[in-house]
Amino acid sequence: MSERPPPADEDDWLLDDSQDENPEILAETQKPWKLLIVDDEKDVHTATCLALRDVRYKGQSITFLSAFSGEEGLEVVKAHDDIALIMLDVVMESDDAGLQLARRIREELANSLTRIVLRTGQPGHAPEQDVILHYDINDYKTKTELTTQKLFTTTIASLRAYENLVSLEKNRQGLAKILESASDLYEIHSLREFASGVLRQVSALLDIAPDGILCIRNGSEPGSSLPEILAASGAYEHLAEVGNLAGEPKLAALFEQVFREKIRTFQHPYDMLYIPARNNHEFAVHFMPQQPLDAVECDLLDVFCQRISAAYDNLYLYQQLRSAQAATVVALADLAEFRDTDTGEHVLRVQKLTDAIVQEMRIRNHYPDLISREFMDRIGMASILHDIGKVATPDHILLKPGKLDPDERTIMELHASIGEQILAKSAKLVEGISYLSLGSEIAGGHHEHFDGTGYPLQLKGQSIPLSARIVQVVDVFDALLSKRPYKMPWSLEDTMHYIKGRAGSQFDPLVVDALVHLVDENRLPVKFS
Amino acid sequence: MSERPPPADEDDWLLDDSQDENPEILAETQKPWKLLIVDDEKDVHTATCLALRDVRYKGQSITFLSAFSGEEGLEVVKAHDDIALIMLDVVMESDDAGLQLARRIREELANSLTRIVLRTGQPGHAPEQDVILHYDINDYKTKTELTTQKLFTTTIASLRAYENLVSLEKNRQGLAKILESASDLYEIHSLREFASGVLRQVSALLDIAPDGILCIRNGSEPGSSLPEILAASGAYEHLAEVGNLAGEPKLAALFEQVFREKIRTFQHPYDMLYIPARNNHEFAVHFMPQQPLDAVECDLLDVFCQRISAAYDNLYLYQQLRSAQAATVVALADLAEFRDTDTGEHVLRVQKLTDAIVQEMRIRNHYPDLISREFMDRIGMASILHDIGKVATPDHILLKPGKLDPDERTIMELHASIGEQILAKSAKLVEGISYLSLGSEIAGGHHEHFDGTGYPLQLKGQSIPLSARIVQVVDVFDALLSKRPYKMPWSLEDTMHYIKGRAGSQFDPLVVDALVHLVDENRLPVKFS
Repeated sequence: MSERPPPADEDDWLLDDSQDENPEILAETQKPWKLLIVDDEKDVHTATCLALRDVRYKGQSITFLSAFSGEEGLEVVKAHDDIALIMLDVVMESDDAGLQLARRIREELANSLTRIVLRTGQPGHAPEQDVILHYDINDYKTKTELTTQKLFTTTIASLRAYENLVSLEKNRQGLAKILESASDLYEIHSLREFASGVLRQVSALLDIAPDGILCIRNGSEPGSSLPEILAASGAYEHLAEVGNLAGEPKLAALFEQVFREKIRTFQHPYDMLYIPARNNHEFAVHFMPQQPLDAVECDLLDVFCQRISAAYDNLYLYQQLRSAQAATVVALADLAEFRDTDTGEHVLRVQKLTDAIVQEMRIRNHYPDLISREFMDRIGMASILHDIGKVATPDHILLKPGKLDPDERTIMELHASIGEQILAKSAKLVEGISYLSLGSEIAGGHHEHFDGTGYPLQLKGQSIPLSARIVQVVDVFDALLSKRPYKMPWSLEDTMHYIKGRAGSQFDPLVVDALVHLVDENRLPVKFS
Repeated sequence: MSERPPPADEDDWLLDDSQDENPEILAETQKPWKLLIVDDEKDVHTATCLALRDVRYKGQSITFLSAFSGEEGLEVVKAHDDIALIMLDVVMESDDAGLQLARRIREELANSLTRIVLRTGQPGHAPEQDVILHYDINDYKTKTELTTQKLFTTTIASLRAYENLVSLEKNRQGLAKILESASDLYEIHSLREFASGVLRQVSALLDIAPDGILCIRNGSEPGSSLPEILAASGAYEHLAEVGNLAGEPKLAALFEQVFREKIRTFQHPYDMLYIPARNNHEFAVHFMPQQPLDAVECDLLDVFCQRISAAYDNLYLYQQLRSAQAATVVALADLAEFRDTDTGEHVLRVQKLTDAIVQEMRIRNHYPDLISREFMDRIGMASILHDIGKVATPDHILLKPGKLDPDERTIMELHASIGEQILAKSAKLVEGISYLSLGSEIAGGHHEHFDGTGYPLQLKGQSIPLSARIVQVVDVFDALLSKRPYKMPWSLEDTMHYIKGRAGSQFDPLVVDALVHLVDENRLPVKFS
């Protein structure tokens, strides 16, 4: 067996033939293996480099790092977290400098992947049996036994072991990332945020730039072959606003192919994921890793796609429940309206105006303790329930064309507390702030006046629920601006004059303040003719 | 340095001092390392066993397996998936029998964890440079260089490498299991099923018997120190029905401690997980692994608990939405009732009877294509909306004490199509089968007769929605059995006589069949006085 270093011009035996047929390209795109020599004898560095300089393993060459003491070695390892192999002398600045370095690498740096081969010229200072058992090293060689051939064998075996460990660790870390990110997706309740989250997570998983596009297609609609862009990031961000790939024929063809073949394609650099989801929806994701994906990455992406699909199912279910809930509230309002003279337009306008005022109050920091996210999310929908109690008002009063007499007025005014009661009974079935609990407050309190002169309870100021104080303003605002059987619509000027004049008496001044800003800055969400 | 096998009576140097102070107990509970010798020379087996028989690594001894050919070696590896190290001869039944075995282990058996050390007496048949590059082996030794000391070093280095790989792989597989199982939990929508799922998954993750208890406590209620058992399995299954730990003082104390200290405790065999969750709820899980948990298992359990907590958040949100939705449907029914003479008792009885009849029909396999899971889940709640259209019936008709004249009757009958329309409008906002879509069918069709003589559309047989055919029977059944202002309650006998007499004319015979079974077998869900 030859002990001279393998000659550079005969390096075909150094190539693993299981590799790609074009190793030069691979060598260009992949990183070389890092080998650190820690030894206080300069000659050892020179000889090692000479012996191994032409070695290639899996198409990659070796880059040599050098350190001449244990301390220096530690600094190099700290600076490079991807050293495959350390050839480590024992006796340097102290009799056990190499052993100490080995221990610190494993314990202090928590690096368990780098292979450490102890190589000693003075085995008396580090008895083999003792050292191999008590230090987390991967081989023990005396310098005399380490012929060039043995050096080669040890290096290849070490690179292979390092490669195995790195691959497993990469897989493990990838799964941990997917676990973390999949949970995050379960907390997202909007489809577009979900889509952006998927793009972010592909780039985090593969550690690549966040250049990606996610499209959705409804597979049950045969005509709709043009996929819709749900999210686009990085280099593609400008496409997010366009919403489709009409201006990008090459990308459009890629997406078209994936949706047709229903399978992922990793044709670097045109990598595409395919994710089937509930209800005939399907997603495709385009992303651009700098290098071709390796087997571990492909496996991880498969796992990732399964998780995305499951998380989307959950999102879909959530959205179904949300829309069912909203639809039922609308049905409630419709039902009450059936006996009222109003059209459905009134409650729709009340909903939009209520939402706009609450947002404005949030911006102006009015009542920050009361305006929570839940409150903001639900008050608009809850506001449409304000007159629901009118369902109990007798026809001869509800439908009377002229003015009500005092007795009739008393009966009419019952609609506030009846609405409050109906909704409060159901609201008890739900924890926390719900459409029903807010609706109950609003129904009961939307005829109270800020100065305590309203009905039914003559509540005053802060003791009237904020939700009711808001809808009180909105209800009057909309009523004045609308045509009713008994009146013509008022002008916006007259209406605002009336409302401003009653800020602090009938109305909460901070609610009026928000409305004034919306009106003055022409930001009302509804038009009045 | 000595080359004789380490003497058994001086084996302290063989013990890794980082280990437990009681290695005998460890050795009893942990499995020994498996070392397979594949060599066609019997003497090599004997000498290897002799040299290594007293070796211990991490408190564990070595068990030797033997094979005398490549083929035999393959069978042994197939039978043992936990071999740490194979000492592999090259030339056996063929010149490259050992090399072939190495390749088959990696490729056919997909075993990449077992360490393979090639040990050849005829290096000419397997040149070192060539073999170490082209075969996925972990070291190459000629028999002459393999002194007892080198054999020892190679063995320890290999066991260490195997241990590292197994630990990483175990961690990786654990994460993959958690990923899989966490997604499953997201699909569960009942708290008790969720709890059972958690117990199952702890046992799958740790590969232990499914003996466990999961308790929940509401941390915001200071008085409620007694945790409630949500799930109990295996040896503890009997506790699931009891519901608490009153009869198990030792276990009760364990749970009490975990809920007090809010931290997991792995005091084998009393291992406990602690999982904080949304809304001040907290879970504790008791399980019983046979051996103390290792570091990888502890880490995995931490990850698992985080996922459980996130999945519970999702479940909680789902339940909130479900109850909000149900409460809104109840409010709808309440609202309609406000103008009706019925009390709320009628709709509650209709709901329960409808659910019971649908379940009975499912058991009897009536209309299997129509009775889907969604249908079963929602029809009871939807049934309470059947008379919602009465909200539009004028007072003088709705509240008239005597018999209605034909014109009044026509107006009264409008309640069916009005209810259908109100609900259909909202149902359009939701995909699929919802309370609203079923409610709409029921409101519109619950006065149709099976023979086409009902109202409003004189639909016949299968063209009446099944939901309406069911509620039609239930509505009449309950009305006859109840006291109304204009009638006394009928007896059950008279009622059933009436209903059976109209099976096929007014009523769907299969619905009547289900009701007859419920009545005859005394399984009605409501009592009639």
